[in-house]
Amino acid sequence: MNHDTICALATANGIGAIGIIRISGEQSFEIVNKIFQGKNLEKADSHTIHYGFIVDGKIQDLVTDNQQPTTDNQETIDEVMVSVFRAPKTFTAEDSVEISFHGSPHIAKKILEVLIKNGARMAKAGEFTMRAFMNGRIDLSQAESIADLIASENESSRKVALNQLKGGITNEISFLRTDLLNFVSLVELELDFAEEDVEFADRSALNQLLDKIETKLDSLIESFQYGNAIKNGTAVAIIGKPNAGKSTLLNALLKEERAIVSNIAGTTRDTIEEILHIKGHAFRLIDTAGLRDTVDEIEAIGVKKAKEKVENANILVYLADAATEDFSEDIEMIKSLMRDDLKLIICATKIDEVSPATYEKVENIFRSEISDDFDFIKISAVENQNIQDLKNELSSYVEQLKSQENNVVITNQRHFEALGKSLDAVSKVKEAIVTQISTELLAYELRNALEHLGEISGEVTNDEVLGNIFSKFCIGK
Amino acid sequence: MNHDTICALATANGIGAIGIIRISGEQSFEIVNKIFQGKNLEKADSHTIHYGFIVDGKIQDLVTDNQQPTTDNQETIDEVMVSVFRAPKTFTAEDSVEISFHGSPHIAKKILEVLIKNGARMAKAGEFTMRAFMNGRIDLSQAESIADLIASENESSRKVALNQLKGGITNEISFLRTDLLNFVSLVELELDFAEEDVEFADRSALNQLLDKIETKLDSLIESFQYGNAIKNGTAVAIIGKPNAGKSTLLNALLKEERAIVSNIAGTTRDTIEEILHIKGHAFRLIDTAGLRDTVDEIEAIGVKKAKEKVENANILVYLADAATEDFSEDIEMIKSLMRDDLKLIICATKIDEVSPATYEKVENIFRSEISDDFDFIKISAVENQNIQDLKNELSSYVEQLKSQENNVVITNQRHFEALGKSLDAVSKVKEAIVTQISTELLAYELRNALEHLGEISGEVTNDEVLGNIFSKFCIGK
Repeated sequence: MNHDTICALATANGIGAIGIIRISGEQSFEIVNKIFQGKNLEKADSHTIHYGFIVDGKIQDLVTDNQQPTTDNQETIDEVMVSVFRAPKTFTAEDSVEISFHGSPHIAKKILEVLIKNGARMAKAGEFTMRAFMNGRIDLSQAESIADLIASENESSRKVALNQLKGGITNEISFLRTDLLNFVSLVELELDFAEEDVEFADRSALNQLLDKIETKLDSLIESFQYGNAIKNGTAVAIIGKPNAGKSTLLNALLKEERAIVSNIAGTTRDTIEEILHIKGHAFRLIDTAGLRDTVDEIEAIGVKKAKEKVENANILVYLADAATEDFSEDIEMIKSLMRDDLKLIICATKIDEVSPATYEKVENIFRSEISDDFDFIKISAVENQNIQDLKNELSSYVEQLKSQENNVVITNQRHFEALGKSLDAVSKVKEAIVTQISTELLAYELRNALEHLGEISGEVTNDEVLGNIFSKFCIGK
Repeated sequence: MNHDTICALATANGIGAIGIIRISGEQSFEIVNKIFQGKNLEKADSHTIHYGFIVDGKIQDLVTDNQQPTTDNQETIDEVMVSVFRAPKTFTAEDSVEISFHGSPHIAKKILEVLIKNGARMAKAGEFTMRAFMNGRIDLSQAESIADLIASENESSRKVALNQLKGGITNEISFLRTDLLNFVSLVELELDFAEEDVEFADRSALNQLLDKIETKLDSLIESFQYGNAIKNGTAVAIIGKPNAGKSTLLNALLKEERAIVSNIAGTTRDTIEEILHIKGHAFRLIDTAGLRDTVDEIEAIGVKKAKEKVENANILVYLADAATEDFSEDIEMIKSLMRDDLKLIICATKIDEVSPATYEKVENIFRSEISDDFDFIKISAVENQNIQDLKNELSSYVEQLKSQENNVVITNQRHFEALGKSLDAVSKVKEAIVTQISTELLAYELRNALEHLGEISGEVTNDEVLGNIFSKFCIGK
């Protein structure tokens, strides 16, 4: 592992009152001392903050060369506060410094230049967190949770990431691994006594444990669907014939959201998706760009176009105008769009324009024509009625994904895959027991399962995997 | 002045490894203690950093209510580092706290919510800096320099802002004011002895001093043109007939810049202007958007369109294709575009295609037809020759704006206006001496001049002016 001293901007890009540059490595104090006019950091206590100036070409350097101190060779970059963190009680477990400067990107660049000139180098993406992991301060899933925390955009994702940072997943996995490790020891003991054909590891007890582990793994794997909804949001497609009230519904749904969003700094988005938050869960309303702007001019959406929209959706909200008579087109459209893993919510719109009897008739038409597995909601977006019903329905979709048995939720694709491989390996062990395979191969399969479980916490890992994980971090993390 | 405790995000909006929330006011420690699970901040030394968690509904609060501690009522928001700053040695001169959290805008919002729930309120724009000023830690021009530092995008603007933060302008002004104040005292002493018709203030000495002050003010006012170039950049319009080589020149000019820009984080711009930095000075290349993309397809620019482009420019770079024979259109165009305050640089392009004799002939044509007050540069952008000449010419335009007599540069419109008013007031005092106006009116005019000079440092000010200045700051500053 590289022990040189790294530096990077740690705060968000752009203009702010304060910017922070983070430096970590053995030479942190030495390097910053060269450019900091203020307290000698070598003599500073850990976790203390010092006022001064960042300068390029410090007077002290000239004095040691027996030159007269002069301000000509010296340039002051900024007035700063410098925080000192002494190893090992730091984020990276190395000596670290944080420079708090007037938050202009130009000043950030100047300070980084002077740091590099004096012996630091730019940190690679995720390198601070990688050092925290390499130096044993956090495990791999905790390192990953830091990226998740920073990227968290809603309550659910923040909570899951924080739980993971506190060791949630690792605790679950360690428990499974310890159980499995006991058996590996017993089976490997058998190998030592191979000549004598003894069986230290009770195969039926092993089987029972494997069942238990399998159940646990299943439950964790199952939580990934919920984890995914938390991390990436639930995709909702809103479909309906022209004038079914899509734009009105969208405005009603997003009304409150808009107000909230405008109050939060930094929530601008590049995508054309609208994000709706309900009870801390995020819902991505797919391809709604056109809907909001053109209330009456929406072109009839062809089945092909609608299918594309619904393709990546978890939920289809279909709007049917209750004031019309003929629903055959709607029914045909819904039938052509449905998949097994798509939740369907049919909303009868404009119910303020029809009688309760008519409304009931409409519901019956859909119930008789489409298999009964959908929610039917009456909506009058104009009067903002029943919008809450729809929100509850959306929210309950996410809630029901939540596993009852497990507090830990998997949100990470890598964890999901490692759990899947572990589950496969466990199946193979079980199969090995049934087919009474050789003890050597049984031990091999057990080791294999152990290894996959170890991947999550980083107990078992390799450079490629690490590089892959940390390269996805931003620089400065 | 309001002494309640304020809080705001201090780092740039957006996702970063670290975000900082700043809290300032008498109740800072008390409020943060309510939500910080870690060191009791009331007992922490100033300038120290403490590890812990931000929680909503802290266990301690429940205990004091004789309830059982429970984690049900409590929610952990994030793992943080908290910095403690004790009055008066803080930015605002008040008790202050900085919370360093995992830099997600969502987490920032949650922490701010919890702070507000516990008694803090959101800071207004510039309120932290305003408190620093109101509490006498910095003067008004220093407060303004903080906003300038944060917004600085190049070396010149950073240096001028830092000089101002170190008290540069105030020092100059204080010196002038003290001189003037002496005379005011003498003149007002005369008022006390008005019956006796004495003259304590030597009118000729006063006149001499007023001349000196006038010269100083003139020089500061003059520096504003340079200051403006530093702060806002120098506007350059590049004009020429189709195929004169505008796009090629632009690419050559911006080549290095592009490479630099792509290495700096956070320098994306919304405008269609290209920014070029030469020797730390910024040049804004006006309306170049079309030039870069369509090398050979540039429509002939009509005089009207060209005039619009040149209207806001400080420098006109006119490209004339040296390989053509007839320059009458070019000359006509230049004549119609020129203004007294516009610097003209004529670039003869494609010189690699013509003989030195031809080139000389071209220069002579322009010299004979247009008044001789322009620079003539030969350019072969293809071979990147002489691009440096053009850059030097641009840079020297800014350098010559720099006053020889004054190290202090005025960049602020408000300072510029206050200096202008001071100069007017000084003229009126001189006039008053010449016309032997009454001592009362002389004293009034002197007071008036003093007041305008005091506006810059904020020695004389009012709420409206302050509100106006600080409302332009971002929240968190």
